[in-house]
Amino acid sequence: MTEFKIDITLTENPKQKPDFAHLDFGKNFTDHMFIVDYTKGKGWHDARIVPYQPITLDPAAMVFHYGQTVFEGLKAYHTSEEEVLLFRPDMNMKRLNRSNDRLCIPHIDEELALNGIKKLIDLEREWVPTAEGTSLYVRPFIIATEPYLGVAPSKRYQFIVILSPVGAYYKEGINPVKIAVERQFVRATIGGTGNAKTAGNYAGSLKAQEVAEADGYSQVLWLDGRENKYIEEVGSMNIFFKINGEVVTPMLNGSILEGVTRDSILKLLAHWNIPVSERKLSMEELYEAYQQGLVEEAFGTGTAAVISPVGELFWENEKLVINGGKTGELSKKLYDTLTGIQLGTESDPFGWTVKVEKQEPATLSQTN
Amino acid sequence: MTEFKIDITLTENPKQKPDFAHLDFGKNFTDHMFIVDYTKGKGWHDARIVPYQPITLDPAAMVFHYGQTVFEGLKAYHTSEEEVLLFRPDMNMKRLNRSNDRLCIPHIDEELALNGIKKLIDLEREWVPTAEGTSLYVRPFIIATEPYLGVAPSKRYQFIVILSPVGAYYKEGINPVKIAVERQFVRATIGGTGNAKTAGNYAGSLKAQEVAEADGYSQVLWLDGRENKYIEEVGSMNIFFKINGEVVTPMLNGSILEGVTRDSILKLLAHWNIPVSERKLSMEELYEAYQQGLVEEAFGTGTAAVISPVGELFWENEKLVINGGKTGELSKKLYDTLTGIQLGTESDPFGWTVKVEKQEPATLSQTN
Repeated sequence: MTEFKIDITLTENPKQKPDFAHLDFGKNFTDHMFIVDYTKGKGWHDARIVPYQPITLDPAAMVFHYGQTVFEGLKAYHTSEEEVLLFRPDMNMKRLNRSNDRLCIPHIDEELALNGIKKLIDLEREWVPTAEGTSLYVRPFIIATEPYLGVAPSKRYQFIVILSPVGAYYKEGINPVKIAVERQFVRATIGGTGNAKTAGNYAGSLKAQEVAEADGYSQVLWLDGRENKYIEEVGSMNIFFKINGEVVTPMLNGSILEGVTRDSILKLLAHWNIPVSERKLSMEELYEAYQQGLVEEAFGTGTAAVISPVGELFWENEKLVINGGKTGELSKKLYDTLTGIQLGTESDPFGWTVKVEKQEPATLSQTN
Repeated sequence: MTEFKIDITLTENPKQKPDFAHLDFGKNFTDHMFIVDYTKGKGWHDARIVPYQPITLDPAAMVFHYGQTVFEGLKAYHTSEEEVLLFRPDMNMKRLNRSNDRLCIPHIDEELALNGIKKLIDLEREWVPTAEGTSLYVRPFIIATEPYLGVAPSKRYQFIVILSPVGAYYKEGINPVKIAVERQFVRATIGGTGNAKTAGNYAGSLKAQEVAEADGYSQVLWLDGRENKYIEEVGSMNIFFKINGEVVTPMLNGSILEGVTRDSILKLLAHWNIPVSERKLSMEELYEAYQQGLVEEAFGTGTAAVISPVGELFWENEKLVINGGKTGELSKKLYDTLTGIQLGTESDPFGWTVKVEKQEPATLSQTN
């Protein structure tokens, strides 16, 4: 790869850190951010770490109008050995570029992006919380910045990384949630943007979520956009079911997001010799299995929540209670193993964790 | 309605106006902008006209991550009587709120929004170009501004209106364009956000457009997301076909945008006693009609281009040439009538145009 220089400007006004014992998700941000600019004809340039600060954009900046933007989400964990670990960050960088493809945003050098993330986290080491269930959430994103009202790919972008010390995503923690099968709204369809991590997918999902919450459900289960029949995702997570001893998750079909946690679970299950299949799963098939008492567990998976057990599924005026509304054994084992690997307390047979190395102090201050 | 006060701060550095004879679409902006803030619990507040200036947002502002944003597009025309006319702006304000519903953004008072637009245009009267085909493009939009990385509706928004003097949207002008029927990508599906004017729809459309352009086509014809069979829109316009004397446009089904120009054309055609129907139209049906020599005209409709005739349609390795690749008689008549009404040179039987009244100078400077 090309050697990229990352300039560092340190803040002169460090923030007071929030109470790490009571962290809300995604509301506190660290002292610095990482930025790289893109200009057509010049490529990505001016990689830099600067004090956390507002973004200033022309009101005609294309991100406001035509939504050309992608993002990623990953976490850094503080280990008992005073190390900071990232979990499979290469997967996030690869997905970022797949999202870029779909959104007509130029590829970013994955090593540059990851180096910037590591340097930034290293600088913010004191912001990585240590309590159980907490972590430093890493949010890389790209926005189209050219001021132009024509519908076309932007000629300018910014890649930005911000960091947020977080507690658990769901206040319920690892406790099971109740979800409603969505019949009116659709998250994504084949040929659309469902497998890209782009803002519009999330904007479009809010209405169904709002309706479900008003009915007392914390998430919706999305069905496919073509036939409204096959299970796709739950809220903003992938979904797994344990049916009659076999773990089933919807196969990647172009409208389902390729979750890093999803992939990790598939690999763990295979490693444990637990039968697992990625395939089409219709709500009808699930219901039939439920009636036969064969639906043993259900859980959503994602970076924010890791594993989120599903205790109840609302479908056609019927409440399907799964595993007595309690967290299943496998769900718990997967959660413990994954978070254990992430925290460095469990062995890491796949080499998933990546250590954030401490920089030489000299390097750090060199460009300050 | 509640009486809203609009504060005005005039610029101290008026820009040099661009060459009105050579205006690109959406690249030049006027001296001022209109802003209204929204805060949960307080509603919309602080309506103001200020000098055109950058928007400053926290990097965690939700618009960058979850795409909660809607917009509108309308035009102000300079008449030969030195008046400035808007075309059916009430339709845009109503649609803005329908988009808001879908995106979980709070309704804005339509009269407040329209008053702000009128006051802003009045102030920028000298920016309304006079040459044929030119106009002042009005872009109202709403963005979610709360800094929060959770997937939920924002608690803060800004409604912003910017103005751009524009030439013709397509360099081809009223000349026919070549379009390709899109088979791989999907713009929207029922249950999604297709009938809302929101950024994500446009972001998702760029890829197909890029592929089509590389193949020498200026737009794509979108088919439905469920069966990939029924015609929906063309590029970012609605689509009409004249088949055997009858004008046909896809019926509004929840995934098609309810265009103001589309509605105006339906009303004009009915007024002229030309047979017209809103219904499902499959590509197969169109192809069959084409083979029988019955497809007489095709045109896209939208605020930016008004009428954009389609001269050629690429479908399954075949080029369907419509009306010899020339602008059809009805397309031309609709274009002339609509632009005539918009410019005040044709009679306005439906009362579609709305005059931008001149403010008393006293009112203008009062809050300056």
